[in-house]
Amino acid sequence: MAEPALDALVDALRRLPGVGEKSARRMALHLLQHDRIGAQRLALSLQAAVANVRHCARCHTFTESEVCGICADGQRDARLLCVVETPADQSTMERTGSYAGYYFVLMGRLSPLDGIGVHDIGLQALLSRAAEDGVEEVIVATNFTAEGEATAHAVSEALKARGLRVTRLSRGVPVGSELEYVDLGTIAHALVDRR
Amino acid sequence: MAEPALDALVDALRRLPGVGEKSARRMALHLLQHDRIGAQRLALSLQAAVANVRHCARCHTFTESEVCGICADGQRDARLLCVVETPADQSTMERTGSYAGYYFVLMGRLSPLDGIGVHDIGLQALLSRAAEDGVEEVIVATNFTAEGEATAHAVSEALKARGLRVTRLSRGVPVGSELEYVDLGTIAHALVDRR
Repeated sequence: MAEPALDALVDALRRLPGVGEKSARRMALHLLQHDRIGAQRLALSLQAAVANVRHCARCHTFTESEVCGICADGQRDARLLCVVETPADQSTMERTGSYAGYYFVLMGRLSPLDGIGVHDIGLQALLSRAAEDGVEEVIVATNFTAEGEATAHAVSEALKARGLRVTRLSRGVPVGSELEYVDLGTIAHALVDRR
Repeated sequence: MAEPALDALVDALRRLPGVGEKSARRMALHLLQHDRIGAQRLALSLQAAVANVRHCARCHTFTESEVCGICADGQRDARLLCVVETPADQSTMERTGSYAGYYFVLMGRLSPLDGIGVHDIGLQALLSRAAEDGVEEVIVATNFTAEGEATAHAVSEALKARGLRVTRLSRGVPVGSELEYVDLGTIAHALVDRR
């Protein structure tokens, strides 16, 4: 059964993260059988997003304007700058409702094995941004993974070398968890970082 | 953060089967950050598939021609017609390498609760196809689920009423499995259908 348009669609869907051969085929058949309007809409959304979504000139997150909504908001606390890896992490921080400062989004993390160095995470742009008048503290909120920690270390050292105050999210026991079921490394960190 | 093009893309991705809010956002960010060429390719593949993929005039499976490759193949066994629910099931049957006849693809199954009746699965077209010269046996290979069994029953009755020989895939113990771990209903069926 050589059906080039169908096979090409399956191949294109497989490039989505977390989608294998079987799911891609299921998605393609579903769209063609039950949701051709959804397929058209997805095609147009992809083209519109590729054409319109770019990086905020100040914080590097995704935006459709020159500067993103948060950076353009004059009401936030200009003394705080929070460094995160991705727009998804930024949106998680926002949803906590506990942070009112600005952001810098690295759009990645250091990963020497994948050839991702300090240039790819926009370190120079971050240093310029952090050096602006009014920034008093840079909160490094990269992930608590090996690569996230390495990124936090590199970013923090570079910021401190320029005399900036740098903090990191505290490590500790997740809210609502029982000590018995928390991994020992986390408890050890929670001891060290005890308040 | 109002980013209409990004939000529209996330919404469109959510319509894919098995994709929720979080995966849709992860897919959108991945495409925009790492694979804009893949996003363009997916958009074009969707449009090409919607424009070119239609139903085979003989067996109703997806094809880009008037008649699909299997129906157009004169070398297959015209005495056998196998009824399956979906192109995916058809492709599974083909991969067994044990079937050389033709197919009729229902493109669905009876589901009264969803309003899917005999008209939606093309029963009339199946009856005409099965009445063609040379068809000696119709093998009903719908799924062994409640809806698949109900579909098999309706399809078989209609075919038998026209004097056709109708068979069903045998139920039984899966190859390679130990009886101890097979569900009792399957073993009961395997007893009834014993050879």
